[in-house]
Amino acid sequence: MFETAELGRKVSRQEYKAQVPQLRTELLELQQQLRSAGFAVIVIFAGVDGAGKSETIDVLNEWMDPRGLLTRAFDPPTSEEQERPHFWRYWLALPPKGRIGLYLSSWYSQPLVDRVYGQIDQAIFDQSLNRITTFEKELAADGTLILKFWMHLGKKAQKRRLDALEKDPLTRWRVTKREKRHWKMYDLFESVADRLLHKTNTGEAPWYIVEGADHNYRTLSVATLLRDAIRRHLERRAVAGGEKLPVKPVARVETRQPHTVLSRLDMSQKVARAEYDLLLEKYQGKLHLLTREAKARQVSTILVFEGVDAAGKGGAIHRLTGAMDARLYQVIPIAAPTDEERAQHYLWRFWRHLPRAGRVTIFDRSWYGRVLVERVEGFADDAAWRRAYAEINDFEEQLAEHGVVLVKYWAHITQEEQLRRFESRQETPYKSYKLTAEDWRNREKWELYEQAVNDMVAYTSTNFAPWTLVEGNDKYFARLKVLRVLCERLGAALNR
Amino acid sequence: MFETAELGRKVSRQEYKAQVPQLRTELLELQQQLRSAGFAVIVIFAGVDGAGKSETIDVLNEWMDPRGLLTRAFDPPTSEEQERPHFWRYWLALPPKGRIGLYLSSWYSQPLVDRVYGQIDQAIFDQSLNRITTFEKELAADGTLILKFWMHLGKKAQKRRLDALEKDPLTRWRVTKREKRHWKMYDLFESVADRLLHKTNTGEAPWYIVEGADHNYRTLSVATLLRDAIRRHLERRAVAGGEKLPVKPVARVETRQPHTVLSRLDMSQKVARAEYDLLLEKYQGKLHLLTREAKARQVSTILVFEGVDAAGKGGAIHRLTGAMDARLYQVIPIAAPTDEERAQHYLWRFWRHLPRAGRVTIFDRSWYGRVLVERVEGFADDAAWRRAYAEINDFEEQLAEHGVVLVKYWAHITQEEQLRRFESRQETPYKSYKLTAEDWRNREKWELYEQAVNDMVAYTSTNFAPWTLVEGNDKYFARLKVLRVLCERLGAALNR
Repeated sequence: MFETAELGRKVSRQEYKAQVPQLRTELLELQQQLRSAGFAVIVIFAGVDGAGKSETIDVLNEWMDPRGLLTRAFDPPTSEEQERPHFWRYWLALPPKGRIGLYLSSWYSQPLVDRVYGQIDQAIFDQSLNRITTFEKELAADGTLILKFWMHLGKKAQKRRLDALEKDPLTRWRVTKREKRHWKMYDLFESVADRLLHKTNTGEAPWYIVEGADHNYRTLSVATLLRDAIRRHLERRAVAGGEKLPVKPVARVETRQPHTVLSRLDMSQKVARAEYDLLLEKYQGKLHLLTREAKARQVSTILVFEGVDAAGKGGAIHRLTGAMDARLYQVIPIAAPTDEERAQHYLWRFWRHLPRAGRVTIFDRSWYGRVLVERVEGFADDAAWRRAYAEINDFEEQLAEHGVVLVKYWAHITQEEQLRRFESRQETPYKSYKLTAEDWRNREKWELYEQAVNDMVAYTSTNFAPWTLVEGNDKYFARLKVLRVLCERLGAALNR
Repeated sequence: MFETAELGRKVSRQEYKAQVPQLRTELLELQQQLRSAGFAVIVIFAGVDGAGKSETIDVLNEWMDPRGLLTRAFDPPTSEEQERPHFWRYWLALPPKGRIGLYLSSWYSQPLVDRVYGQIDQAIFDQSLNRITTFEKELAADGTLILKFWMHLGKKAQKRRLDALEKDPLTRWRVTKREKRHWKMYDLFESVADRLLHKTNTGEAPWYIVEGADHNYRTLSVATLLRDAIRRHLERRAVAGGEKLPVKPVARVETRQPHTVLSRLDMSQKVARAEYDLLLEKYQGKLHLLTREAKARQVSTILVFEGVDAAGKGGAIHRLTGAMDARLYQVIPIAAPTDEERAQHYLWRFWRHLPRAGRVTIFDRSWYGRVLVERVEGFADDAAWRRAYAEINDFEEQLAEHGVVLVKYWAHITQEEQLRRFESRQETPYKSYKLTAEDWRNREKWELYEQAVNDMVAYTSTNFAPWTLVEGNDKYFARLKVLRVLCERLGAALNR
């Protein structure tokens, strides 16, 4: 869930200074329109200590009209508050219509900390999260716009940040024993946060995961996301109300986000032929034994292959199936849905192919089409693909809870490598059937797809079903990585 | 939750025969339109054994075009099914678009039975229910119409029904040891069902509680509700799609439901003046002591007074407050919201008045305005008041979980008695301020209000916050009942 927020993204002082004036103007204009728009805005700041939550709130208070803002941080409940139900103080702190509430240490803090410290078990934790989603859903049904920012820092980045705060006499007070203790519990916090995020990432109140290391980057990200969300909400309500758009068209400044999880991959990784031959035999042998044991012990496996066109999905799948007993596996290629499938929910066609115990099912493309091709090509509307992240997590969680080993691969190649492969396909008669006009069209949408992949990884790489990104410029490297990861995951599930 | 389904409602053979032909025609016409409407319909039948679940499914299969129906009952999972995640078989059994799926022993059976038999605790039970609402929500987001019927029988009615089935050689097989054992566990089943219903009664997939004792009544009820729901869904989608209504207007047959929870009240109950004086003193004394002890032990009380105009709410409240230390209680009269309140969610104004520990707050009218006056007068749209039942239950559950004693009264008088009181107010100078033109207007909507009250009791009389209906034609009787019930509830909370 947090891979996309550990990319080291930065915005230079120069670019920051260039963007701020227009962004501030737009935010002020939207605030103006909001005043009479009949709905409130709730913005939650949560996340890792030191990732800039309160700094960002400070900036927003500086940039926007303070009369339209309401900033609240919640300390441990007072005795007055303890005498009422838990949500009492949150209800009283809600922003009225026309205003924006900025919340630090909101209703998410206590369940998170209680779970990390083992004061509540997972079922009670889930109950608290469920109460939160009910609360947010009720507010959203009343028209409230809800945005939730998870400000993130990687483990090392957090250490650096805490050290820096401690060195500065002006900020030393912010680093207490509590912060230091929590840093030592980083992995535990991250694992609980992973569950918290995917359980409460709803269509009505989505989480935005923001990399918090760089002041300029995180500030622009939050401000841009806030601006766009308010604008979309104003537009949606205007359309729903049958009005003409009251929203003044303003030139949009886009924060360029050249870094994605894909751009950080080391695409130069290679394996020599001789080493490949050796390792291929080793992993295939291992896989063969593991799948036989999985059959005997009734452990099912589901593999998902997604990737750029020509990234070598087929070849990798071939190397897997070559190692398995043909009675054990099934490859399901996902193309356009049949009539029967079209008459059902989009997840139905995947449910129907779930393997019996002990089998392996390989999906060549998958349910992720919803948030990739259907998003980019506009086959699914905005609301549909946005809510798909939660639907997919829920689906995969059911698989994981049932004990299925779920491994998801994104096979990646660079644009240059893809061009080379396309051209080679064009020139080689027995390969040319693989290349269609659609492949060329998809290529033109490279950046849109890259953004979609980044969001997909951000929202669906969970503890129970992480994504494996496969650097595919070198086929040998890619195939070995696919095999190795499968052996590791299956081995872990079988305690081997 | 089940009070409205134990009223002994019946439909005569004659009326049944008169209504069926048109109802069947309409259902067939709607089925025809459904075929190309692009959405599926899911109808769940759950409830008490012997309340006519399978009989109703039989009738629908007879009345409607079987090619558009899909009927499924779920036995305990087969080994094939156990090898997949729990919801696998439910996904595969979903109706395709254009069709209606009728489900017996659906996804609700197992959690209910497991909880009753103590095989899962409350937190795990809630998790299963949460998974169900997620599932239904996903389907609804995809356009599916979901109706859930809870077919109900009171404890005695169920006994009669099981005895009758057992006597008949043709149906004897249906009454096994299991049914008999479950009847003995009736109260436990009812209490678990209460939680199940209010936790899963969502706007997307509402429960309809149907009294199951009379074949004709339950059949007409289910068929009418199904017809109306399909029609509404077709209309909504047509409007949302910007199309002209494809729905043929057909004359609507309304099932007259003359019986409501109110019509069953014994309005002739009276208390003589001398007895009243005695008991008033007794209960007031008791209440005085109880509220003092509640203060000492930090137990809060919230009283809700709703009722027909001139039913004597004010007088009853007066008799309560007369017994309490003025520092302990607060009466909150609820009229039109203030500007500040209007700028918030409708529940906000009630949250803000929650008492500190040990205090008593009396709401003279309350959050139930949402499902009473706002529904009847059209101030809240259909979706808003329908989802309010779940919102209110959630709110009250938070109060109950916090340990608040919540007592809700509906003060009732007959139409004749109201007229008498209105006229007396008109004639008595010092009372005439109490009577407004609005009171006369409300009186004209008597039947709409009565239906709204019936639904309110059906959906919001929960284990943790039951309604108390107060027969108010005799003021003495009413005041004593109000006092007595409060003493009982408060006494129980304090273990007195």
